[in-house]
Amino acid sequence: MSIISLTTDFGLSDGYVGVMKGVILGIAPDARLVDLSHEIAPQDVLQAAYVLAGAIPYFPQGTIHLVVVDPGVGSARRAIVVRTDAALFIGPDNGVLTPALADSSAQAWVLDRPEFRLPEVSATFHGRDIFAPAAGHLARGAPLEAMARSISDPVRLTMPTAQRTSDGGIRGEVVYIDRFGNLITNIPGSWLTGESAQCYLAGRLIPGPYHTYSEAPTRAPLALISSGGALEIAVRDGNAQQVLGADIGAPVLVSPA
Amino acid sequence: MSIISLTTDFGLSDGYVGVMKGVILGIAPDARLVDLSHEIAPQDVLQAAYVLAGAIPYFPQGTIHLVVVDPGVGSARRAIVVRTDAALFIGPDNGVLTPALADSSAQAWVLDRPEFRLPEVSATFHGRDIFAPAAGHLARGAPLEAMARSISDPVRLTMPTAQRTSDGGIRGEVVYIDRFGNLITNIPGSWLTGESAQCYLAGRLIPGPYHTYSEAPTRAPLALISSGGALEIAVRDGNAQQVLGADIGAPVLVSPA
Amino acid sequence: MSIISLTTDFGLSDGYVGVMKGVILGIAPDARLVDLSHEIAPQDVLQAAYVLAGAIPYFPQGTIHLVVVDPGVGSARRAIVVRTDAALFIGPDNGVLTPALADSSAQAWVLDRPEFRLPEVSATFHGRDIFAPAAGHLARGAPLEAMARSISDPVRLTMPTAQRTSDGGIRGEVVYIDRFGNLITNIPGSWLTGESAQCYLAGRLIPGPYHTYSEAPTRAPLALISSGGALEIAVRDGNAQQVLGADIGAPVLVSPA
Repeated sequence: MSIISLTTDFGLSDGYVGVMKGVILGIAPDARLVDLSHEIAPQDVLQAAYVLAGAIPYFPQGTIHLVVVDPGVGSARRAIVVRTDAALFIGPDNGVLTPALADSSAQAWVLDRPEFRLPEVSATFHGRDIFAPAAGHLARGAPLEAMARSISDPVRLTMPTAQRTSDGGIRGEVVYIDRFGNLITNIPGSWLTGESAQCYLAGRLIPGPYHTYSEAPTRAPLALISSGGALEIAVRDGNAQQVLGADIGAPVLVSPA
Repeated sequence: MSIISLTTDFGLSDGYVGVMKGVILGIAPDARLVDLSHEIAPQDVLQAAYVLAGAIPYFPQGTIHLVVVDPGVGSARRAIVVRTDAALFIGPDNGVLTPALADSSAQAWVLDRPEFRLPEVSATFHGRDIFAPAAGHLARGAPLEAMARSISDPVRLTMPTAQRTSDGGIRGEVVYIDRFGNLITNIPGSWLTGESAQCYLAGRLIPGPYHTYSEAPTRAPLALISSGGALEIAVRDGNAQQVLGADIGAPVLVSPA
Repeated sequence: MSIISLTTDFGLSDGYVGVMKGVILGIAPDARLVDLSHEIAPQDVLQAAYVLAGAIPYFPQGTIHLVVVDPGVGSARRAIVVRTDAALFIGPDNGVLTPALADSSAQAWVLDRPEFRLPEVSATFHGRDIFAPAAGHLARGAPLEAMARSISDPVRLTMPTAQRTSDGGIRGEVVYIDRFGNLITNIPGSWLTGESAQCYLAGRLIPGPYHTYSEAPTRAPLALISSGGALEIAVRDGNAQQVLGADIGAPVLVSPA
């Protein structure tokens, strides 16, 4: 009984996600379907990659992660599968599977066999016609080798990484903003050693890092380690994105300890 | 193990959909529940009918489609089941099941047996008290004949259809707008023959029809065939509803080829 | 095959709910997961309690209700389980489980055993690290006695209750507003006897109580009994919250019959 996670930018109002599930269950009636997010901003491949990255460690061995954020649908971009020791990933070859490709065991495959698609493939909804059937067949136990051909050049996103500065500090940036307006950076929490680290968001000193939200005064900004293990800038009982006027890409500096 | 799809205008914040699922699983513990949409605009029976129509072909044989968009809840309107060779449909008798009734094999039934409802039936939540129990009992294998009485006069919506004009063109209209702002018309893609068809939205020439979104320049309007097989007017990487100022009912003309 | 309902204020865009489901299925692969709401207003413990209260009667015996609305995450607040004759409830000890504690069979337990958590517990996402694993282990059949320690002092919310006035009337208030803008009060419908009861919202006479929405003229305010059995003030085909300018806490009076 395979688990299939689904991540798209389709939203939940039009029935597109339900249709994909209908297709999957028609092929693999026992598959367990888990929505990761369908509220990815339209065509925001990078956001989908971050949501996927945060989920991978928490799903069981053998999970199939289906990600359809696909600005190039109908063009020549490939449909791919990435297989790691832990999971299978299905999506368009536009970099959205970069977190899977970062695994040292990752191998990429191109889905090039029409018999594992719906009989008619539209130009605008490969989630339904190509990706969902592929997930269904893999969930049902079809061997990847029969469905796809190994490739060596899957597209990878450049995901910005934090850098250590020459004076012993850290330079990073905001890479994800969640529903609560919390600003997630690309600075690994494990890089923050000692009590004396000072965090600056766009030049503004942010108190912390604290252990929990509740250590800061109400409505005050704070730094802490996110649930994903990265430096996070929040506002207690408030929305840091709004209060601090920050957006994706805002620079974050940590002064030398 | 039956599949039950759910479509409502209940939204996802109040727990109403979850309660319906609790009722279903109390009767049919093995049923597979798939959300189609719960973001139908309040009381928009026609929108629900279009979402349902787009989903029907992609669900497995025997699926039970439960649709609760029910402005007349508590009034004398009937609760009905439509059975086709492919599926079962449950909902209020207000036309929302019109896409099912369009199937030549369709038969309609009225749910008139109290023993297949919850013991107490409220005046305002038949989704929970009448429709969900009916879905559960059908999923569990209760024969429709024991639960309902055949009727010949189910309510049907008038869904506007495209017309061929005397000069060999086509006249249709926008009938659905999706989350991306794409304008779906009622003009079958199969009616568009030849390269020379020209599409006009409210008098404005729309380039195309193209095969995919990516053939148009960024931010440019285009016509193409939707994933449901109808003429669609979109804006590449943009929102056609907003950019073109069009709404449901906007006239669409295709000039003679 | 246990049913687990999930209620959070996480929203559906960030993947947090999907991650919790991944954790649960890793422990209890056969669990049936039902979303109740993930659109609880951020940190609104009282709203979550009302959503839970409305759902409890409609889920099967033995359901596990998981509720994570947790402003104090990472602080010293306890993680608890409430067991009643009908169901199990898991959540932070901040009063969100008050509707479960109102059951005369309710017993409270504190989850204090690290072996039933994820190996690493973050300071900001106990839904993933503590509550989801607890739900998974209970669904898999682990005895509560092995996972938790009985306590006698769980936190209870003060949920405002309606009062009978000395002149034979009723004084209550609006306690919940649903997606449609319907105003749900804390006045039990069973208290409204006779045809002559007159309802006032913030001093304004509201026609009714009617049996159904459709008895009132379009756009007119009306009182009726909600699907949860309480006095409700609505506007037919409209949004009572907006039309009547009312909010949570607005006083509602019922004059003597």
